[in-house]
Formats: sequence, structure tokens, C-alpha cells
Amino acid sequence: MVITIEFNRLYAFAFQVFLKMGCFEDDAHLAAKTLLSADLRGVDSHGIARLTGYVRLWEVKRINAQSNISIIHETPSTAVVDGDEGLGLVVAPKAMAIAIEKASKVGTGWVSVQNSNHFGIAGIHAMMALEKDMIGIAMTNASALVAPTFSRERMLGTNPIAVAIPAGNEAAFVADFATTTAANGKLEILQLKNEPTPDGWVQDAAGESSNDAHILKSGGALLPLGSDREHSSHKGFMLGSIVDIFSGVLSGANFGPWVPPFPAYVPMPENQPGKGIGHFFGAMRIDAFRTADAFKKDMDLWIQRFKSAQPIDSNQPVIIPGEPERIMEMERMEKGIPVAAAVLNDLDALAVKFELNRLS
Amino acid sequence: MVITIEFNRLYAFAFQVFLKMGCFEDDAHLAAKTLLSADLRGVDSHGIARLTGYVRLWEVKRINAQSNISIIHETPSTAVVDGDEGLGLVVAPKAMAIAIEKASKVGTGWVSVQNSNHFGIAGIHAMMALEKDMIGIAMTNASALVAPTFSRERMLGTNPIAVAIPAGNEAAFVADFATTTAANGKLEILQLKNEPTPDGWVQDAAGESSNDAHILKSGGALLPLGSDREHSSHKGFMLGSIVDIFSGVLSGANFGPWVPPFPAYVPMPENQPGKGIGHFFGAMRIDAFRTADAFKKDMDLWIQRFKSAQPIDSNQPVIIPGEPERIMEMERMEKGIPVAAAVLNDLDALAVKFELNRLS
Repeated sequence: MVITIEFNRLYAFAFQVFLKMGCFEDDAHLAAKTLLSADLRGVDSHGIARLTGYVRLWEVKRINAQSNISIIHETPSTAVVDGDEGLGLVVAPKAMAIAIEKASKVGTGWVSVQNSNHFGIAGIHAMMALEKDMIGIAMTNASALVAPTFSRERMLGTNPIAVAIPAGNEAAFVADFATTTAANGKLEILQLKNEPTPDGWVQDAAGESSNDAHILKSGGALLPLGSDREHSSHKGFMLGSIVDIFSGVLSGANFGPWVPPFPAYVPMPENQPGKGIGHFFGAMRIDAFRTADAFKKDMDLWIQRFKSAQPIDSNQPVIIPGEPERIMEMERMEKGIPVAAAVLNDLDALAVKFELNRLS
Repeated sequence: MVITIEFNRLYAFAFQVFLKMGCFEDDAHLAAKTLLSADLRGVDSHGIARLTGYVRLWEVKRINAQSNISIIHETPSTAVVDGDEGLGLVVAPKAMAIAIEKASKVGTGWVSVQNSNHFGIAGIHAMMALEKDMIGIAMTNASALVAPTFSRERMLGTNPIAVAIPAGNEAAFVADFATTTAANGKLEILQLKNEPTPDGWVQDAAGESSNDAHILKSGGALLPLGSDREHSSHKGFMLGSIVDIFSGVLSGANFGPWVPPFPAYVPMPENQPGKGIGHFFGAMRIDAFRTADAFKKDMDLWIQRFKSAQPIDSNQPVIIPGEPERIMEMERMEKGIPVAAAVLNDLDALAVKFELNRLS
């Protein structure tokens, strides 16, 4: 069962929960805005459904609600930020703001973050650059669910990459994707329906191909983008590795199998080499390359030309990255956000815990 | 039939050909070195086999052998370079050197290039950063062979991405991959053997899946990494698009279906919006983030941990990106480079044309 709740009510609820966790008011707003952007854009797995998960991490003292981020090393175009064990939902937009600030001065800004937590969807951070006429880049590592090509061991997270590129009259180009064939959220949908996965999404604990959507619970793994060697899963493995190194190794965060898990009940990996989860952000001022006007004119041409590429089926034109999410956002802002009954139950439990009005 | 020729002989031959085209001596060395790096690293499709193709482009005046690259716009961390219609083999290392120079001053350097030509393998340009303790990034657009998800039209090149990351005692991490399921070179191998392709590599002119390795000659297309929608070909499409926009739109080069073709007999696309082919290069100084020592120690740990990830088959451990190419390079430097008989014929024809000693 799914209940539709208007954006403002969900936002106010999330904001209140973050306040009750002890967040400063500005940070609670930032966290609620970042979290809800996932629901607005249709990435239901990363939005309000995770609020309880963040609270649990705070309860086991793996999230510092009153984090105070700091720059621990910098050059004119770079910084390493210590997230002070804060909510990634708060640390990420602050780190991205530093990248943007540096870009405004020297053309580009690049920030690697250590000691953070899960930051919601990557796309929303990259998109911060758009209003400044900059290209935005965001990525993060995450706890290991993905097996490299030739391995049966989970070594990488779904390690997403987001790139947001401004256009003129057309809507911005916003790519935001996990470096796996299927994101974990897609598995969760099949689990609820008790349906098998297509070939090439997961493997079992021995590394054999599997169609069991529950296989991660018995030692299985997600597969890198490409699925198998013959279809270049080594490229998905390389992409996930680059995200891991830029986010984890470059910042001094954890990397590979040592990245902290999201569920608070999963024990932390032993012998961690770094601090918390790592992110990587970039901002490139368009006019550090060409005038923004000339660039946007060409981006409009790029988008129009790709939109009008000959379709295989005339009812399904080429999709410009970010377009479905943009339409979803307008729709859900107007009509409300669908919340699954199980998620609503969790939120009601949070209401009881924190003495807030229930949403149901 | 395959003949093995020692590196120095092949290098000298390529160098002489570039001189005969009118290249300055330094540029002829740079071009020969870049071209041959493909053969050394096992990417036979992009090395000496293409020398005749470069000569033909020069003959139809699409390559300026005496190019003089110039910076047409810059900030402390960025530049747009005009390649002056030069050999990409020469323009690319010069543009990468500018990125490295900027990184040495302000932490990172980012260079987008217009008005260039095919630049050989991406990896060798990214690797220029390694000896400076920097991370190197290289990408390029190329003429359209790839259909976006849902389209039957060729809109993107195989648009490779290379990322080179220094390590300490371990060899550097060097990823270098086309953003398609299969690179064109893999198709060419099957064409020679008259063998079918695996599912998911190509589609026919109508957009139906195909196993015909010759299908590109009859309007077919390569598929983006992911192969089909169910296996996230839209992610490969996004990656190829990002490379196209960073290389083409950001620089003022051509993009999408307007990128100039490599074969000189293929007519240029009409109504081109930009100049030549576009590339994008980046350099990030490691110590703009952390000390190089601390980073390299963690990179060694990263590499050792991934190398020792539990294998599916104990005879096939996880491959660290760049490792097979590094081994191939040592081997071929010592034992020589295998050259197919057809390629040797082409090179002999060049020898006649330019009054050089034949290789055969």
C-alpha cells in the first residue's frame, strides 16, 4: 500500500527529526532538503525511506549531529574536508560549496571529503553548480556490495557518479548513476514483489550467476556495470574503483571493503585504514573555458540533436539524462510524494520516539 | 600472418614518415612515441596499423603537420587549446603538459582542446601525470559509431576515458576504456576471423540486436557500455555523452554526429558546429590533497587488497587496471611488436611513397 503525502509535510517532519537529533537549525534544513530531493526526483530508495536509518546511525554514535566541518589541507583549486562524522546530507552540500567557491576564483574547485556519512543522491550535490553557470561533479564511495570482475568477494560500493551540465533554453543535462548494472534500489523492488532478477545483475557467494533478488543476504554480490567479462564488467569495476580512490584514498577516508555500512546493526569492518565514508566533488566554471552564452547555445544544440536522434520505436525517443527526474520533481512537488506503508510505519515510530505528530 | 618487428625499427620508421609529412623533428618524435605506445601496450588497433590512416588525412589536408597549438582562453586552473588542425598524437601530449603545468601551480589543471585530430590511446596521455606525482585524466570524442539507448542512429564515438593514479611500491593504476560494451578494435578482430559477435555488442540499422561483426558497414551501431536498457546501457550512453560534452562542447570542437571521421575517404559531416575533434585532459597534484607518501601508502594497500580479493577461479585473480598493459609493454619492448601482414603491406607502400627503406 502506498500513501501520498505532500512535500511540505514530509519536509517538515524530516526537519523536526533532524532537530530532535540535535542538528543546528540550518543543518536540519539542509539535511531535510537533501534527503527529500531523492523522493522528489523519484529515487525513493535514498529519500525519506532512509530517515530511520540515519537516526539509527546517530543512536549508535556513528553520526555527529552537530558536526563542524573543516578544511584540513588546501590549494587554490583543491581542498580536503574533514566531515567531523557529520550527516553526509549536511557535509556534502557544504563541501560542494567549497568546490564552487574555489571555482569562482581560479576556474575549477575539487574537494575530497573524509570522515563523512551517506550523502543521499549524488545528483543533487552536482546540481548546486548549475545556478552558478558551472559544471558540477559529485561521487561517493559506500559499503561493499559489488564484486570486481573475476572475484566473488564484495569489494566496492555501488559508488555513484553525478555530472550536472548547464544548458540555455533546454533543461540542464544531469547524469546520476551507480557504477553497477543495477542499483540496490532496483533489487529491493524485486524483493518486495518476490520476483527474480534479470541475468547479469547479481552473482551468488561462489561467484556463479544468479537471479535471486535476495542473494546479497547470503553472500552474493551486485555486478559492476557491464555484468560479465564478455560485456566489459571490468569497465564498471574500473569506474567504481576510480570513485573509491577519488573519494576514499585521496581524502584519507576508508576505501574498498573497509567503508562503513549504512545499517547500524552491521558491525564496522576491522582494521579500517581511514576515517568514515569519502566523497569527491568538482565544480568547473563554464567561462573558465568559453563564454557561458556560447557554451549554452551549443549545449542546446547538443540536447536538441540527441532528442531528435532516430528512435527504434517512434513512441520512445532518446532520453536526455536528468529529464525524467526533472519531470518527476515537478509532478511530485505538485501532487505529493508516494510513501510505502512500511516506510510510513517507520516514520510513525520515529514520531513516537521524538514526540512529534504522526504523518499517518 | 604476423611478423614481429623490434620496437626501435618500427619507431624509426614512424618517425621518418612523420618527418616526410613535414612535421618538425620534435613533433615527429612525439607523434612516433605516442603512436607506438599503443602497440607496446597491446592496443594494436590504435598503433602502427593507423599510420597509413594519418598519412591519408594529411594528404586530404585534414591534418596540419606543422601545427602550432595555442591557448585561446585560460584561468589559473583551466585552458582551452586550439590544436591548429594538428596530429592529435602531438596536440594531446602538449595539451596535457599544460594541464600538468597548471596543476603544479594551483593544485589541478584542466584543458579542453578544439581543432585536433585522433590522439592515439587515451591512457598514454593520462600517464604523463604519474612521474609528477599527479593523477592524470584524458578523454576524447570521436566520429559517431554508437547509438544511444532507444535510438538506431549513430550519435557518439567510442569516446574513451583514461585515469592514471600513482602508487608507491605497486605499479600505477591505469584505467583506459571505451565507453561502449566492445571497442571497435574487438569487432575488427572478429571481422578478420569471420566470427559472429556475442549478444549485446552491436545492433543493426533498424536497432534490432545483431551478431554480425560487419554490421557497422550496413548502418548498424556499437552499443553503449551496458548493452541494453535492462543492463543499464543508458549509463554507457551517459558516460559517452559526458566525454563528448567535456571534449567537444566545452572546447568549441565538434560533438555528437558532427565529429570528423578517421577514414579520409568518408565525407565530413555537414553543418559542423565546431572545429575538428575535441579532447579533455586533467591533472591533479596528489599533494594538493594529502602528502604523496601517505596517498601512495594507501594506494599500495588498495592495490594489494584488491589483488587478493577472493577469486571465483583460483587461477584468475582480480586484475588491477593497467597491469596487463604494463606487462605487455615490457614484453614487447624486449621481444618486438607483432605486425599483421596486411599492416606490413600498408607500411611498405608508405616506404615506397616516401622513399624510405621497407620494413619487410
